[in-house]
Amino acid sequence: MSIEILPGFREFYPEICFERNFIFEKMRQVCQNFCFTEYDSPILEPLELFTEKSGEEIAAQLFNFVDRGGRAVALRPEMTPAVARMIGSKIHTLKRPLKWFSIEENFRYERPQKGRLRSFYQLNVDIFDEKNIYADAEIVALAIAILRSFGLTADDFHVRLSDRNLWTFLLHGFAVPENLIASVLSIVDKIERESRDESIQKLNALNLDGARLLETITTFQTMRTVDDLEKFLQTIFKNSYKEAALHLDQLRLLLARLKHFGLASFVTLDFSIVRGLAYYTGLVFEIFERSGKSRALAGGGRYDDLIEKFGYPKTAAVGLAIGDVTLGNVLADRHLIPTFDPIADLFMIFDPQSEAIAMGDAYDLRGHGFSVNYVLKDGLSMDKQFKQAIRAHWVAQYTGGQENIILRDIVQRKDYPIRHSEILSFL
Amino acid sequence: MSIEILPGFREFYPEICFERNFIFEKMRQVCQNFCFTEYDSPILEPLELFTEKSGEEIAAQLFNFVDRGGRAVALRPEMTPAVARMIGSKIHTLKRPLKWFSIEENFRYERPQKGRLRSFYQLNVDIFDEKNIYADAEIVALAIAILRSFGLTADDFHVRLSDRNLWTFLLHGFAVPENLIASVLSIVDKIERESRDESIQKLNALNLDGARLLETITTFQTMRTVDDLEKFLQTIFKNSYKEAALHLDQLRLLLARLKHFGLASFVTLDFSIVRGLAYYTGLVFEIFERSGKSRALAGGGRYDDLIEKFGYPKTAAVGLAIGDVTLGNVLADRHLIPTFDPIADLFMIFDPQSEAIAMGDAYDLRGHGFSVNYVLKDGLSMDKQFKQAIRAHWVAQYTGGQENIILRDIVQRKDYPIRHSEILSFL
Repeated sequence: MSIEILPGFREFYPEICFERNFIFEKMRQVCQNFCFTEYDSPILEPLELFTEKSGEEIAAQLFNFVDRGGRAVALRPEMTPAVARMIGSKIHTLKRPLKWFSIEENFRYERPQKGRLRSFYQLNVDIFDEKNIYADAEIVALAIAILRSFGLTADDFHVRLSDRNLWTFLLHGFAVPENLIASVLSIVDKIERESRDESIQKLNALNLDGARLLETITTFQTMRTVDDLEKFLQTIFKNSYKEAALHLDQLRLLLARLKHFGLASFVTLDFSIVRGLAYYTGLVFEIFERSGKSRALAGGGRYDDLIEKFGYPKTAAVGLAIGDVTLGNVLADRHLIPTFDPIADLFMIFDPQSEAIAMGDAYDLRGHGFSVNYVLKDGLSMDKQFKQAIRAHWVAQYTGGQENIILRDIVQRKDYPIRHSEILSFL
Repeated sequence: MSIEILPGFREFYPEICFERNFIFEKMRQVCQNFCFTEYDSPILEPLELFTEKSGEEIAAQLFNFVDRGGRAVALRPEMTPAVARMIGSKIHTLKRPLKWFSIEENFRYERPQKGRLRSFYQLNVDIFDEKNIYADAEIVALAIAILRSFGLTADDFHVRLSDRNLWTFLLHGFAVPENLIASVLSIVDKIERESRDESIQKLNALNLDGARLLETITTFQTMRTVDDLEKFLQTIFKNSYKEAALHLDQLRLLLARLKHFGLASFVTLDFSIVRGLAYYTGLVFEIFERSGKSRALAGGGRYDDLIEKFGYPKTAAVGLAIGDVTLGNVLADRHLIPTFDPIADLFMIFDPQSEAIAMGDAYDLRGHGFSVNYVLKDGLSMDKQFKQAIRAHWVAQYTGGQENIILRDIVQRKDYPIRHSEILSFL
């Protein structure tokens, strides 16, 4: 008889909706403290918006169909193409640089599993039209600030930070042609999960010297300071290493600013991180639990070429994304989500004879920002009202006797001009 | 080159997103003051959830398709079937009565026009498992409180309130058979927009005495007090009018409670209102601008049979809905939406030599709830930082000289332990 929800989707009963909104509100507040402004885009879009530039993986996971007007349409699987359009189509009238965020619902038809659903929420934050490395630092600092706002500490998570420019420099140095760089990085992205032989084989298949390249790559991935990195590149590339100097300087500026923010203990230089998506052009980072238990909590990077690829003027961009599912799991594991507690500021128990005055006060108190509750039956004795209230867990317990004092305290605190407190009882 | 959004959908640039969120936050706050708790349901559902019990009009407007797993699915056109499932399937474990609200996005494929879009937001509020008429009063009072929270007054809007029970009594009295009641009410719903002759013709077509019935109906619709209504029913039905006495008493209780809330001036008894949907069983109401310019701002009523129709235990229900489009238009016309003003609490202009200390303070201040902004370039002189900030409208004007005083004021207000104010300048 009953029609169940679809696999990978969620119902939000009040206690779950409270947790979702708690996460959203923290994200929103921290983004606003960093002076980002919120935007949103349609959930349903022309299909081609998502097939043109998104990776094949996303295209294979679309919820797409033909609408009643014959349009090929799809549910939004990610925010980037839509925000690229919003920014790109109005770039000349918007005041730049732009610091934008959205908290949006996305849809992907993948196998539902821990940390992955077919409908999920994502915080998406970007700075557009600011090339300076301090924009990159701002994004990383914001990601950390958001996680800290929930009570997570440097003992709980760290940012693994890497640079696509240095990856490209390294691979160019090994004569990897431009058109193979994305393929090699995709192999690098999987090194942690595959055997040495598998990786070598895959590199060989690209007509590269797999064994030699993999040795360099794995050493590169162990570098934890810019100074070590510099020495390593000097050793391999001799004089031509200087082409990397600019990137090394930028990395130093980035790490210095994060240190000035007080965030050094949160950040690890780690070239294991390359990020799957082809469009990153500089900084890339992912945030993981130190325990390594969960999927990435957050990720992001710089993508200065993407808006141009959508046909708009070239516009620098750096951003991050945080999904709600993994974050929610991590916070729940650590008991960092407050308990849903819908008890009212005031629960009114009143003599039925005084209903008129009591209800006048109730409406006014609500208008003054109090949450006020009472039993929605007529003519119940005060005793029965108490029992109903306690049975429905609207009140924790009956304090007895002190009601008017409690009322006056609350009312004085909020400057409410009380008229009729003598007829009210409160818990 | 660019891929446009679909007709009837909206992009939310920051100033528009701000207006949307402003409306949502007011709705949420007032619902919480009335002790309703928020819930949500999936945007995508099995198709049959919306074809089983929704009206034909809604079924004809669905965004529906077959997903990659071969399931017939649809975007949510309304909240009621999903909330009926949520309530119905857990009715025995939920603490009742339930006071629930959602602020959800719905989708209907209809012709986009003023006040109607294909994607719209709606506040949906319901009380479940409370038959008492005071639950009806609570819903009407909440609708009024929400509109008042935006600054609308009794001069701007009124609630037109009617009762399906009395409609049914009246039609039964004229020997309209049970199976025609919905058809007659659907004709009544259009009386204001059609000619007298058209209405009579339609009633005749149902084998009813159209002219006589319409005369009674139009007189019934002019009743503005319960006393007048009682006299009118007495005159027509003589002794058998007493079957209506219970409904008249209930209506008196409802109006009395609204009066006690202080809301008499907002409410008009008006039997022109019947509401299109077949499932209402008691109170029905709609809220209109007094000017009569716009579509209904809100509407609702009691629907005690619907949850049972979905196959769950019979559960009393009374609720309301407020859409964002008409409300947004009405508020915009009256300049009741505040201007989007993204200026930061503090804009930092600092000597590049002091970058490290300035950034340490910036991060800490943000952590203490201040919104802090600064130019994301390295090494800019203070003069150039000012110019950039003003050019980008991050700051309204340079106050000059008083910066540290402003900082101390703000910091003392929020108990921030200031360390380095001597190096900061603020606007």
